[in-house]
Amino acid sequence: MSVVVVNKIDELRNLIKDFRKQDKTIALVPTMGCLHNGHKSLMEKAHSIADVTIISVFVNPIQFCPGEDYDKYPRTLQNDIEVAESAGVSVIFAPSVSEMYPNLNKFSDITMVVPPYELTDIMCGKSRVGHFDGVETVVTKLFNIVQPDYACFGMKDIQQLFLIKKMVKDLNMPVEIVPCPLVREENGLALSSRNKYLSDDEKVKALTISKSLFAIKESFKLGIKDTKKLFDVGLTNLDKNVELEYLEFVDFDTFQKVDDIKSNTICAIAARVGDVRLIDNVILEV
Amino acid sequence: MSVVVVNKIDELRNLIKDFRKQDKTIALVPTMGCLHNGHKSLMEKAHSIADVTIISVFVNPIQFCPGEDYDKYPRTLQNDIEVAESAGVSVIFAPSVSEMYPNLNKFSDITMVVPPYELTDIMCGKSRVGHFDGVETVVTKLFNIVQPDYACFGMKDIQQLFLIKKMVKDLNMPVEIVPCPLVREENGLALSSRNKYLSDDEKVKALTISKSLFAIKESFKLGIKDTKKLFDVGLTNLDKNVELEYLEFVDFDTFQKVDDIKSNTICAIAARVGDVRLIDNVILEV
Repeated sequence: MSVVVVNKIDELRNLIKDFRKQDKTIALVPTMGCLHNGHKSLMEKAHSIADVTIISVFVNPIQFCPGEDYDKYPRTLQNDIEVAESAGVSVIFAPSVSEMYPNLNKFSDITMVVPPYELTDIMCGKSRVGHFDGVETVVTKLFNIVQPDYACFGMKDIQQLFLIKKMVKDLNMPVEIVPCPLVREENGLALSSRNKYLSDDEKVKALTISKSLFAIKESFKLGIKDTKKLFDVGLTNLDKNVELEYLEFVDFDTFQKVDDIKSNTICAIAARVGDVRLIDNVILEV
Repeated sequence: MSVVVVNKIDELRNLIKDFRKQDKTIALVPTMGCLHNGHKSLMEKAHSIADVTIISVFVNPIQFCPGEDYDKYPRTLQNDIEVAESAGVSVIFAPSVSEMYPNLNKFSDITMVVPPYELTDIMCGKSRVGHFDGVETVVTKLFNIVQPDYACFGMKDIQQLFLIKKMVKDLNMPVEIVPCPLVREENGLALSSRNKYLSDDEKVKALTISKSLFAIKESFKLGIKDTKKLFDVGLTNLDKNVELEYLEFVDFDTFQKVDDIKSNTICAIAARVGDVRLIDNVILEV
């Protein structure tokens, strides 16, 4: 069966009603398009657990901060359709901005879903103020439109995954969040739609981000539990032209900062290579 | 059929699954208990439009501000069960605080649903900072737990009704909001659980709140459209021992303040009689 592309919320709801009448389970994969193999692994996971896989392709304006790359964010719908079809997706929901945010004059006009401040004043949330409010709001909208049984999120955006799991629990949303492993190029670079922005030279520098994380993981395996020391290991391995935004160690279950690793810990990094902001992480398992 | 009282979310979800299997439609009436004839009219409306009526009885701590009456808010579950049963309610959901907010240390720990600042920095939201965040968060939780087809809200809490309608639209919640008329005692006093706090003497003073609104409505019908003049009419009719918090005129559709009435307008009042805060409103229809 070939993939169906719908742009309107009502049209999508009608399709979903039909699926429900046939007692089909639904998995949703929210994306901003520009699909790569990381997304593909999410869609394949979705396809393996539910009868119907629906993806959204929507570059969500309210999760971009002023000065970020909203306007130039790559839009590649034709290619996205091919990737989705090859991964067993049934429906692509690709709404316009006005379909998702009708009569929106300014973003402060709409009801927002807002994660706790303490959990957004760290890592990506610290530099991208309001970013996770925009993410949770659009994800809530998508959940309410699709009412999926499952929703798949990648572990590259580890803070996003944590906050969405928390949102679902806090607000009793009737959906199961399915975390999916981060996918890398063979050379170690974490897949990202923003890798498209990198020149060949920048790609070489960007590679030192994953190298740093792998070095930290090696040192951790050799017995170093002090995150200050592990931080230094990471820094040593990072190209000097890579501008570090953060390199943090947080508990896997609570997202609280960790000094001395005693339970599963996320080591996460954000850094700029030229103008391109990249994130990556590894899990240090105890 | 007698009403079933459940305290646990999972238990309620199992009941709802059964209703859904039988293709029954569901209407929800969220309440804080201490049910009076105002609530009863909501439940009767719910009963008339859906196969199953579910009410929640939950004094929601996160919608009370510091210093408000959370601790002394009347809890009258036995009476509530009788009122609900007489109104055709099938299920009462009466959870504990820890069932709704598990492991909550402080309210800033949870994901919140937040209406736009501009719409809460007026009327009740202005004095009750954070109140509507608490309301929208608990209503979202209840919607996600019950997944009702309809939810009935009274027009006494007119700002709440407006914000909830907006929340449903903004976040694409799959529920139809059913507004229900404000209910009064024969003498005009708007029904409220907080009327229980009033002494006989205070009740007499409280009556001048609705009298003020009725006088405004009369003057409006006689051709006065200038809200400054209508404000004065209201003030003249209010007992001097009633402490006015606000008397505002806002557009019925946009909740923007109105100077000169040209379209349907809400005239809303909040005032204190002794320690008791009361609200009331009338619609000025063009």
